[in-house]
Amino acid sequence: MPRLCLTVEYDGTSYGGWQVQPNAQTVQEQIESALAQVIGASVRVYSSGRTDAGVHAIDMKAHFDVETLLPLSAYREGVNRFLPQDIVVRQVCRVADDFHARFDAQGKWYRYRLYRGRIRSPLHRLTSWHVAGGLDVEAMTQAADALVGTHDFAAFQASGCAAATTQRTLFEVLLIDEGDELIIDVRGSGFLKNMVRIIVGSLVEVGRAKLTAGQLAEILASGQRCRAGLTAPAQGLCLMQVWYEKNIEIT
Amino acid sequence: MPRLCLTVEYDGTSYGGWQVQPNAQTVQEQIESALAQVIGASVRVYSSGRTDAGVHAIDMKAHFDVETLLPLSAYREGVNRFLPQDIVVRQVCRVADDFHARFDAQGKWYRYRLYRGRIRSPLHRLTSWHVAGGLDVEAMTQAADALVGTHDFAAFQASGCAAATTQRTLFEVLLIDEGDELIIDVRGSGFLKNMVRIIVGSLVEVGRAKLTAGQLAEILASGQRCRAGLTAPAQGLCLMQVWYEKNIEIT
Repeated sequence: MPRLCLTVEYDGTSYGGWQVQPNAQTVQEQIESALAQVIGASVRVYSSGRTDAGVHAIDMKAHFDVETLLPLSAYREGVNRFLPQDIVVRQVCRVADDFHARFDAQGKWYRYRLYRGRIRSPLHRLTSWHVAGGLDVEAMTQAADALVGTHDFAAFQASGCAAATTQRTLFEVLLIDEGDELIIDVRGSGFLKNMVRIIVGSLVEVGRAKLTAGQLAEILASGQRCRAGLTAPAQGLCLMQVWYEKNIEIT
Repeated sequence: MPRLCLTVEYDGTSYGGWQVQPNAQTVQEQIESALAQVIGASVRVYSSGRTDAGVHAIDMKAHFDVETLLPLSAYREGVNRFLPQDIVVRQVCRVADDFHARFDAQGKWYRYRLYRGRIRSPLHRLTSWHVAGGLDVEAMTQAADALVGTHDFAAFQASGCAAATTQRTLFEVLLIDEGDELIIDVRGSGFLKNMVRIIVGSLVEVGRAKLTAGQLAEILASGQRCRAGLTAPAQGLCLMQVWYEKNIEIT
C-alpha cells in the first residue's frame, strides 16, 4: 500500500498533546478524523514523536497508508478543509513503503522561548515562559555546552518515562539573545519524555545562580532526576524540525 | 485630583475592541473593573484612542484620576492581580493634572503583519493576515512612499467615521521583509477609523498588481473611500507606541 508523510503545524494551546487519549482533544485525533473524511475510511497516523499538552509544532511528521493513491494536493487541500484553524497540514509527500516517521528520524530541533520582561506579556503568554528578573546568559551558555554530546540523560527525563535506554546525543544547545526574549534551540538525535523542558528548567536555575554549570554537569553524571531543575512549562516549547538521513520524498 | 497614566498591553483576540460597548467584553471594561477593585470606587479611564475588535496593543495609554494617591506600584500590582491573562498594565506613572492621553498624543506607531506562506499558519493566525502568493514589495514600497506626508485621508477612513477633519500626517510607512512575514510599520500624527487597515489593504492590492502606485496616489487625491482597497483584517494590527511631546511622567 502506498505510504504518505504529512508535515503538520499546530498551535498546541487547546490540545491535550499530540497523542490520542481519553478526556482530551488531541492533534492526532483531529488529523485522523480529517483524513478519514477525505479518504472515506478510518486511518491511523504514526508520528515522529509525541508532544505534550500545550506544546506547539511547525514541522511534526506523521506517516499513514492509503489503499488507492489520489493526487497529493487532494490530501493536503482536503484535510485542511476539515481541520480547525489551529492545525494545518503544510505538506504531503509520497514516501517509501517501509519509511517510518519515528524510527527513521535522524534528529529533531526544538525551540524554547523565555520571556524576560519585568511584567508578564499577554502577547507572549501562549508561546513562552515568563521568567522575570535577570538571567546570567553566560553561565547558562557554559552549562548548556556541558550537555552537548552523547550522555546518559536519565537525570533529564520525566519520572515514569518508559524509554528502553536513556542514552541520547545532543548536537547543539544554542542560546539566542533577542532582547526581551531568550531563545534556547536544542538539536539532538532523540529526546526522552520532558527532556527539553527539564534542560530548560535547569538552565534557568543556572541563569538565576541557584545552580552552577559544574553542578549541572554533576547532575547529568548522577543520572538522578530529583537533582535536576524543574520542568519548564509546555507553552514555551515548539518542535521546529524533524530530519531524516536523506530526502524522504519519492516520486 | 492626582492624575495617573497607564501603559497597557493586550491580546485583542477575545475582545470587542478597547471601548466599552453593549454585547461585547472590552479591554476598557476589564481595566476599569480591575481598577475599581483596587481603588474601591468606580473609575473612568481615558485612552489615547480606540482599537477595533481583535486588534492588539503593547503600548496603549490611558489616564484616570484618583482621590488619594497610593504608591504607584500598588496600582500596577493590584490591577494586574484582577486582570485576565490577556491584558496587563505594564506601567503606571503620575502625570500633570491636565494631561490627556488622547489630546496630548503627538503620534502613534502601528505595526501590521502579513503572513506570506503558501499555506495558512496556525501559529501566526491570531497576529497576522494570511496573504498567499507573491507580493511585489518594491511596488508596495513605492506606493507607501506616496502616502507619507500631510494629506486629506478621506479615502482611507471607514464609512461613518465622524472625525471633524480628515487631514492627517503620516511620518513613515515602512515595509520590513522578514521572510514569510512582511511587516508594515505606520507612524503618524493620528489616524482615522480603520485608516491603517485600509492603507494595508490597498498596499496589498498594489503588491498583487491590482492597483499601481500611481493609482493609489490618485485615490488619495480623490478622497473617495469606495476607490481604496479593502480593509485588512483586524488581527494583523498592533498598536506599538503612543508618544507625547515630552516625558509625561512627573514626580
